[in-house]
Amino acid sequence: MAEIRLSGIGVSEGIRIGKVIRYAHSVHNQQFNDIAEAGVAQEITRLAEAKEKCIQEIEQLIEQAQQTVGAEKTGIIQAQKSILLDPTFCPEMEKLISKQLFSAEKAVDQVVKKVMSIFENMPNEYMRERAADVRDVGNRLLAALTGVKGINLGEIREEVILIADDLAPTDTVQLNKKYIQAFVTQKGGKTSHTAIFSKTLGIPAVIGISAGLEQIQAGETIIVDGTAGLCIVNPEEETIRIYLERMAKEAKDENALAAYASQKAITKDGYQVEVGANIGTAADALYAVEQGAEGIGLLRTELVYMSEASLPDEERQFTLYRDIVQVMGNKPVIIRTLDIGGDKELSYLKIPKEMNPFLGYRAIRLCLDQKPLFITQLRAILRASAYGKVKIMFPMISGLEEWRIAKGIVEEVKEQLRAESSSFDEKIEVGIMVEVPSVAILAKQFAKEVDFFSIGTNDLVQYTLAVDRMNEKIDYLYDHFNPAIISLLQNVVNAAHAEGKFVGMCGGMAGDPKAVPLLLALGLDEFSMSATAIRKVKHTINQLELEKCQSLLADVLQMNTARDIRLKLESFGNENGI
Amino acid sequence: MAEIRLSGIGVSEGIRIGKVIRYAHSVHNQQFNDIAEAGVAQEITRLAEAKEKCIQEIEQLIEQAQQTVGAEKTGIIQAQKSILLDPTFCPEMEKLISKQLFSAEKAVDQVVKKVMSIFENMPNEYMRERAADVRDVGNRLLAALTGVKGINLGEIREEVILIADDLAPTDTVQLNKKYIQAFVTQKGGKTSHTAIFSKTLGIPAVIGISAGLEQIQAGETIIVDGTAGLCIVNPEEETIRIYLERMAKEAKDENALAAYASQKAITKDGYQVEVGANIGTAADALYAVEQGAEGIGLLRTELVYMSEASLPDEERQFTLYRDIVQVMGNKPVIIRTLDIGGDKELSYLKIPKEMNPFLGYRAIRLCLDQKPLFITQLRAILRASAYGKVKIMFPMISGLEEWRIAKGIVEEVKEQLRAESSSFDEKIEVGIMVEVPSVAILAKQFAKEVDFFSIGTNDLVQYTLAVDRMNEKIDYLYDHFNPAIISLLQNVVNAAHAEGKFVGMCGGMAGDPKAVPLLLALGLDEFSMSATAIRKVKHTINQLELEKCQSLLADVLQMNTARDIRLKLESFGNENGI
Repeated sequence: MAEIRLSGIGVSEGIRIGKVIRYAHSVHNQQFNDIAEAGVAQEITRLAEAKEKCIQEIEQLIEQAQQTVGAEKTGIIQAQKSILLDPTFCPEMEKLISKQLFSAEKAVDQVVKKVMSIFENMPNEYMRERAADVRDVGNRLLAALTGVKGINLGEIREEVILIADDLAPTDTVQLNKKYIQAFVTQKGGKTSHTAIFSKTLGIPAVIGISAGLEQIQAGETIIVDGTAGLCIVNPEEETIRIYLERMAKEAKDENALAAYASQKAITKDGYQVEVGANIGTAADALYAVEQGAEGIGLLRTELVYMSEASLPDEERQFTLYRDIVQVMGNKPVIIRTLDIGGDKELSYLKIPKEMNPFLGYRAIRLCLDQKPLFITQLRAILRASAYGKVKIMFPMISGLEEWRIAKGIVEEVKEQLRAESSSFDEKIEVGIMVEVPSVAILAKQFAKEVDFFSIGTNDLVQYTLAVDRMNEKIDYLYDHFNPAIISLLQNVVNAAHAEGKFVGMCGGMAGDPKAVPLLLALGLDEFSMSATAIRKVKHTINQLELEKCQSLLADVLQMNTARDIRLKLESFGNENGI
Repeated sequence: MAEIRLSGIGVSEGIRIGKVIRYAHSVHNQQFNDIAEAGVAQEITRLAEAKEKCIQEIEQLIEQAQQTVGAEKTGIIQAQKSILLDPTFCPEMEKLISKQLFSAEKAVDQVVKKVMSIFENMPNEYMRERAADVRDVGNRLLAALTGVKGINLGEIREEVILIADDLAPTDTVQLNKKYIQAFVTQKGGKTSHTAIFSKTLGIPAVIGISAGLEQIQAGETIIVDGTAGLCIVNPEEETIRIYLERMAKEAKDENALAAYASQKAITKDGYQVEVGANIGTAADALYAVEQGAEGIGLLRTELVYMSEASLPDEERQFTLYRDIVQVMGNKPVIIRTLDIGGDKELSYLKIPKEMNPFLGYRAIRLCLDQKPLFITQLRAILRASAYGKVKIMFPMISGLEEWRIAKGIVEEVKEQLRAESSSFDEKIEVGIMVEVPSVAILAKQFAKEVDFFSIGTNDLVQYTLAVDRMNEKIDYLYDHFNPAIISLLQNVVNAAHAEGKFVGMCGGMAGDPKAVPLLLALGLDEFSMSATAIRKVKHTINQLELEKCQSLLADVLQMNTARDIRLKLESFGNENGI
């Protein structure tokens, strides 16, 4: 049999060769029965018990996920809990039981299919993929009702490559990197949960292989190339030899990189910058330090809020922030105040649905509107500041008025704490994210008032180019190398330095090795990124000379298109071994 | 009885004193019957006939609306046609007739109530107000089925002030300004159709008066103050005297303004600019010339598309564009290529629902993706250019690559036309809207390649401040006097002039008298606005001295907040009689 190459979307890099295990969902296409009228009450009780059991299971999974993928990603499983608790989801099943005399199983099956079909028919890919969450909840309810369980992914104890029709978030979270070498699925897209999880776990993965997977037998040896988005069935000997060589090289590169965790981020000609991590929890902080983080450039406090069932109180927040600050010792921790809204929701905080949530009621706009919530958070942050080197940062500031009001509230809270004799860092620095174009344009005026800037390139690029990067119809326009962005970055860094202020970056651009020479030349003081990217960026910085980067920047500033800039940066990277 | 003042939202300026007429919808809260199984076919036929009749009525209303409020606003009535033609709306009624043996009336009632409640429960105000469209369609269907009609607003032949619970778009469009002096409603918000229509018709209106209207009797005399958003019941003599004086002053001001239609837009010290109109149809063009338009700064071609049931072909478009060009004689007409998407939909062009449509697949992005559609339009525009002074303008350009591709397609089309010996203006100018921040930032680079700019402040402000101005939770942040906007405007005008290029503005800011002195000083070449604003802006310009405006600008450029700038402009306006 000849070698077959199946193409899909490579969502997590890396190459693996191994034996196949097949995993199928407990798809609920069986026939379900009706019940007698006398059985209604009992059936409703069964459903309620199954629901309760599922909620417990999901809560366990959330804990488990916090260990494996970090608290940041638990929101995805949390979404399943929200489905279960939705005011129409289970009640609609109850109605089918009492009105139509459906068995609990039949009611679950019908409601799940209906809700899934609503999601599946949505034109937006992101929404379509939410159907998988609903199916997963349905399977879980059916398993609880019938007592039948499928194979438990978490119990696999041999090295395998997993092939599945699709993986639900609650499947992915059980994957143990030690045994699951790679996985391949038929369904899924770039923005699916499966894609996000596999990348976070560091398990090579190819998804969206629409045809050909069904012919692969359990036990066969296949090659998964997560970098190229390839799955090779019946590989020829020559192919295996080539891939083994590439795996050996990858392992070597990985080892070489490991050494950089403990090194400084310093160019060959002695120019040093700070490299920090973007995190959500104390566990993240520990991992970040291990990876070489010299500080926390962004603590996303919304994760504290997202992992709770109601607004976390001051004590709860204080404890969490203090734990993180203590993990970091005397290293700086920039705590961003609540950045909810946009694509991030809190089930217990009812935010009206908006036509354009990215241009809506979010982040500091919400906090200034809901002052008690804001004050609680500021009290917790300020109290934690007594335990290390904390800075406060406001997200989504768009004008000086907003900044002044927010800063004023910090001063009010300090006054409260002084009155109570609670200790906090009297010299705490207060700064802002630069992510709304108006702030990048008015950087000179802001630099006179704020203590520091941190540039959030993800939103800054979205607004400056009027592109929602989650929208696959037009995401090709999203590019942080657009010359307008470079021009704004230059303005922000120069404005900050003219006033002797610190300017960092916590957007995706800071972790992009291609961007590093440009950002060094612009004069960025701090690069903050996901912990996994730190070693690579430190390695990159160590290969560079500041002087060469500066002449690169001079060339780039003459260029008119993102494409020209990309080409230039690629050839510069090749010349400089990065 | 004492004078009572009821407060609401003033959506259309002006004062009127007059007698009340009350208008009630034919609310369908009556009981409807079921039918026998044998009657199903007949009932479905009755529904189909009623639907057909409604479509004819709506088409007549669209024609009528083109006379009264301009083609631009017919999209709103078109929306009702779309509801009727929706693939689920009427079919769901048929299903209720055949499956549940509902009468046609009962089926209409049930589906309309269901769809309305979906809209009414949406958290976004704009969407909530779409419920009125559904109710209006339902009333129309019921009237067609039962033969019962309410009072016909279009047949009112005495001067009255209209009080209603709410007005549907098809009600508003029938209002004759000659007889309907003003109107007052209980429901409606700032973004309601009623608000939009009343402003366009120039009928003073106060909407959203939540309590107190029910006590007003037909025939009573009341005062409506659309400027202050007040409705005064049982006015005291003194109140009437004050209001009569104010009405006299308004009439005098109006007469004084009328003279400016035929005058140049020239400052006291002899600096002249061009004042143009934003239009959609040849009828609009005629009205614009009457109001003093010296050209068309923006022809919104999407209105041509929105008033058709399918994509308009080349001949249809050519005829419409040529008619407009001929109305304008040798005056310039800037034709903007299709700007659909965002909040503007075409029923026959399926655009996927997006999470953030303002940051999505729209305008030039769609045209470059659907090249045949774009080419058809460009052929029609170029052919029309043989009949006058046409310029082509692309909306939503965000990078030089896009501009170059779009310009390249214009060249291709010119080549086609040459090969066919079709005549067109070989020297036609091709320019772009400046509405995405990246373009305003890179204006210098764009100015080297484009023939002209027109600044679209509405979108430019939305993106630069990351604010959807339709979102009432955060629309307070939307302000074209934000210093970041002034800075971008300065950059665009200077960049254009450095290359000897023309720069106009067709956003709402150009028609704001407060902004005029600033825009004059910045050096804007052309101010384009809704025709009704032209006389006021010409009047304003004639009161000013360029030198004073320039020193105003110098002061404004030192200011850090929109609030400071507004205060400065207000005091400048007061000093200069504008």
